[in-house]
Amino acid sequence: MTLPTPLTGVVPPVCTPLTPDHEVDTASLTRLVDHLVAGGVDALFVLGSSSEAAYLPDRHRRTVLDTVVGHVAGQLPVLAGAIDMTTPRVLDHARTALTAGADAIVATAPFYTRTHPAEITRHFRLLAERCEAPLFAYDLPVSVHSKLDADLVLDLAADGVLAGLKDSSGDEGNFREVILGKRGRAPGFSALTGSELTVDSALAMGADGVVPGLGNVDPDGYVRLYRHCRNGDRAAARAEQERLCALFGMVAVGPQDRMGRSSSGLGAFKAALHLRGVIDCPRTAEPQIPLSAEEAGRVGKYLTAAGLL
Amino acid sequence: MTLPTPLTGVVPPVCTPLTPDHEVDTASLTRLVDHLVAGGVDALFVLGSSSEAAYLPDRHRRTVLDTVVGHVAGQLPVLAGAIDMTTPRVLDHARTALTAGADAIVATAPFYTRTHPAEITRHFRLLAERCEAPLFAYDLPVSVHSKLDADLVLDLAADGVLAGLKDSSGDEGNFREVILGKRGRAPGFSALTGSELTVDSALAMGADGVVPGLGNVDPDGYVRLYRHCRNGDRAAARAEQERLCALFGMVAVGPQDRMGRSSSGLGAFKAALHLRGVIDCPRTAEPQIPLSAEEAGRVGKYLTAAGLL
Amino acid sequence: MTLPTPLTGVVPPVCTPLTPDHEVDTASLTRLVDHLVAGGVDALFVLGSSSEAAYLPDRHRRTVLDTVVGHVAGQLPVLAGAIDMTTPRVLDHARTALTAGADAIVATAPFYTRTHPAEITRHFRLLAERCEAPLFAYDLPVSVHSKLDADLVLDLAADGVLAGLKDSSGDEGNFREVILGKRGRAPGFSALTGSELTVDSALAMGADGVVPGLGNVDPDGYVRLYRHCRNGDRAAARAEQERLCALFGMVAVGPQDRMGRSSSGLGAFKAALHLRGVIDCPRTAEPQIPLSAEEAGRVGKYLTAAGLL
Amino acid sequence: MTLPTPLTGVVPPVCTPLTPDHEVDTASLTRLVDHLVAGGVDALFVLGSSSEAAYLPDRHRRTVLDTVVGHVAGQLPVLAGAIDMTTPRVLDHARTALTAGADAIVATAPFYTRTHPAEITRHFRLLAERCEAPLFAYDLPVSVHSKLDADLVLDLAADGVLAGLKDSSGDEGNFREVILGKRGRAPGFSALTGSELTVDSALAMGADGVVPGLGNVDPDGYVRLYRHCRNGDRAAARAEQERLCALFGMVAVGPQDRMGRSSSGLGAFKAALHLRGVIDCPRTAEPQIPLSAEEAGRVGKYLTAAGLL
Repeated sequence: MTLPTPLTGVVPPVCTPLTPDHEVDTASLTRLVDHLVAGGVDALFVLGSSSEAAYLPDRHRRTVLDTVVGHVAGQLPVLAGAIDMTTPRVLDHARTALTAGADAIVATAPFYTRTHPAEITRHFRLLAERCEAPLFAYDLPVSVHSKLDADLVLDLAADGVLAGLKDSSGDEGNFREVILGKRGRAPGFSALTGSELTVDSALAMGADGVVPGLGNVDPDGYVRLYRHCRNGDRAAARAEQERLCALFGMVAVGPQDRMGRSSSGLGAFKAALHLRGVIDCPRTAEPQIPLSAEEAGRVGKYLTAAGLL
Repeated sequence: MTLPTPLTGVVPPVCTPLTPDHEVDTASLTRLVDHLVAGGVDALFVLGSSSEAAYLPDRHRRTVLDTVVGHVAGQLPVLAGAIDMTTPRVLDHARTALTAGADAIVATAPFYTRTHPAEITRHFRLLAERCEAPLFAYDLPVSVHSKLDADLVLDLAADGVLAGLKDSSGDEGNFREVILGKRGRAPGFSALTGSELTVDSALAMGADGVVPGLGNVDPDGYVRLYRHCRNGDRAAARAEQERLCALFGMVAVGPQDRMGRSSSGLGAFKAALHLRGVIDCPRTAEPQIPLSAEEAGRVGKYLTAAGLL
Repeated sequence: MTLPTPLTGVVPPVCTPLTPDHEVDTASLTRLVDHLVAGGVDALFVLGSSSEAAYLPDRHRRTVLDTVVGHVAGQLPVLAGAIDMTTPRVLDHARTALTAGADAIVATAPFYTRTHPAEITRHFRLLAERCEAPLFAYDLPVSVHSKLDADLVLDLAADGVLAGLKDSSGDEGNFREVILGKRGRAPGFSALTGSELTVDSALAMGADGVVPGLGNVDPDGYVRLYRHCRNGDRAAARAEQERLCALFGMVAVGPQDRMGRSSSGLGAFKAALHLRGVIDCPRTAEPQIPLSAEEAGRVGKYLTAAGLL
Repeated sequence: MTLPTPLTGVVPPVCTPLTPDHEVDTASLTRLVDHLVAGGVDALFVLGSSSEAAYLPDRHRRTVLDTVVGHVAGQLPVLAGAIDMTTPRVLDHARTALTAGADAIVATAPFYTRTHPAEITRHFRLLAERCEAPLFAYDLPVSVHSKLDADLVLDLAADGVLAGLKDSSGDEGNFREVILGKRGRAPGFSALTGSELTVDSALAMGADGVVPGLGNVDPDGYVRLYRHCRNGDRAAARAEQERLCALFGMVAVGPQDRMGRSSSGLGAFKAALHLRGVIDCPRTAEPQIPLSAEEAGRVGKYLTAAGLL
């Protein structure tokens, strides 16, 4: 299907449920998609960071694509991450995703390599040239170890190379430069924030949409938040956002002397989906450290406090 | 074939020649292998950073493995990089490499993800458990954005998880802790330096071998250097090393306002191999920036000065 | 004078005008203070990053303190940066500032040293214990190379150690956690954003005030912005903020192949103050690179576009 | 006194003993100087990182200078760190040190500020221009967050701006480029390594001397090591170096979940000096975390194992 220009609204990065023996749990994945669609989201983003794409072997990535694209069946656009180190490898993932029926591709700057801005620009230009689909840049310096500057993004947007940006950099100043700059230069460009905590702010600045990992757990909350913002009901938006900020506290249940932030944050999202009955098993991919029963139990308290359990 | 314990000597990380239309140039790759074997190297390391593994799609990686393993035909051990973000993805590459006949696997800590030491340890333990082959850890903080501490490496060595370390961190103090620590705890463990510039020092400290990218260009030089060190001829070793240090200056021919360090360094190695008649085409993988004719010409001057042209 | 709890409003970090021979230009500094007070600001922050505190020798710091505190004469609170590497050195600056009549102290975490969170906490506790004045933490990871986590800040706020936070980290998610957390735990704590570009957002989230470097150039603009936010006039706030975002573009007039971001940004602020007739000389402290005449001229275009020239 | 060109040998960075109430313990400092001189060192470096210069207020820095310069009384050259953020502040420290009788100044690149290579070059040129004394660059990226590239150092050496380099970067490849480059361009330039663990290597490469923090604890060991290297007795040098590597293990006695690496490393050096009877009190400056009695006790075991207790 053709993507709206710009793409707007709530676009959750869909978690990838796993079975106890580390296969993709397609039944749980289908239920998760239903849970998100029922929540009123505007599109789905598969194979991003919250999907544990970095941990999924290629056959799992294909299973995710086939399952989600097949189940959604054109009701909503499906964006697919093509997360890999450099242009040729990203292209392979992009082609697989487009063949499977994805509607757009999301790609980061090169990583692992020591990358120069001229190489980042060349990377996105080559991707766009060779993919017959809208291309979104994914700005995630904590993983990619380079930052997409507003000027670089806007030049690529103005040239039609990029259809949008998913900004998970946390750098709201730079993101605002993109939002302001696109007005004159690329009005159909979609500026999406990856933040869970500043969605009301980002939308007030003029962001088109939001890609919140926590949206897996509470899609209804983010959809309400988006609608309050669009309706100009700032007080209701802020209240909803603050409820979601409190809920987001769950990402820190795993202690830093025992595990990394991915283990803790993705473990918490999956524990929450499990506790809410959406997925069968809260397992995260290897080599992440699983949450203990006590830590998973604390996730439940966040759900209860947010009225979700 | 069974790897010596420890693996010693010169183990060049084999460059991957490409054709003008970005396919693996297997004829040039075979010639490069012959050039290295003729130089007297002790083993080959394919699909590492100098091989542009980060840029090679899976089918190129398989072509490299098949070409090199097939051509070497058991004369020398072949170590294969399994460069990817996390355990499940690394495992897929490792299995492909072992099926193709590689003798050992080289893997980094997880990257792209936000990784904790407990997850790095778990990663290597899971890899070793599931691969029937010696496993080398690859310490490359400039790419992986975490450092393998000596204690972590030594614990894994003592437990038989790791067969060796390729240390490209540049942190010679930490590397020496590994060298000293392995004596009592894991004498068969192979401590290899990835440095081009401090090989004589590393061997004098007790390193077992060297994995120099510049060894593609001048394998004879590194083999001579290694032999001088083993024979205790320090003066000859130092002279040879200093000649190689001067030659290494080629990696900076590409200006930093136009390209990154990979483009410049790998571009220089390939330009040198092209000028020496070993490979047909100096092209680097996308999105790297090619050297200009003038910059490639300056590579020639380094070769001439080192007596290689 | 006693600081309001919380301190609210616009608190510009006062630039330090220099003479052509690198002395503090006290006449220009006095005019700058008048310009800020006339703009309606709520307090002044001297000897912060925008003041080039890192470049000022102690006798210049004292001159700044004496000049500003003397000239303000109690009309407004004056906060003083005590920018140095560790507790004993910060304490010396803090005592000097308090003796000169400053109303509060602003200090970063230790820097240059390799610092642990336990040492950061101990640092702020020791400072508070030994200074008879409100203590603000200054979160500036780009300079200090550590980040003040919300939990650390909130614990110190709840214990009465910190009177406030100047958050120049750009991490709005973490800042929001501070804003939300202080409600129950430390209602008199002052959460100030150091951003120039997201002031409307920060205030909408519940921030108490703003410390914008660009407020030197256009204090009236930030004061209007603050008032629109307090009055709930979001449309007017956003329009004012967007005008200021465009004006902020001046910080990039200095090209990155010739100078660092401090040289360019502080050079632009001083060029603007010079062009507006507030200060006599746009010189920045050594070893910063001066803007060229052409670059300074481009600053003028930003002023004109913003209606300030 | 006039410094040799190049300065060679062992130049320990002198620790700063403190009293229980955080004053400089001049009696202990004098004994420490005697202990170093008795060990046969070639010069002293005061007010560097191992001296806790970052923690010493200006009056303590002056006390250290006066005590050491006075006590040494011209027997040995005294180099003085002028550790501060930028040119004007470094200059103040440099002038104080020269007035006190120091023979040379040691300064880092600017820190805290966001610094460009052009600004680093300008910084050292301005310092040299305004100080009538030899100027050493101090490369310490872990503190300064920028790296001094070999080309930058060599250009400044060739122009007579820099008299030497103290390289504590751990990047031996870059250090070797300096060593090789200075031969033709600046033969009187002094290339000193700050490493404790690779002194034999550095000297074998052609380094002129060594500035080891651990040299406070065991100056005799480093002096023997230096002499073995100069005499070409590689086996003895390596044995001595390996004994010192084992001794250096003491820096990790402080656990990383409780303190930073400065607290642990400097705490261990001072505990060792206290146990050896050189200084009266092992206290480190605030806000460092003190070692526990058990941790200090483990330092004693390292001393015993190295034959120092």
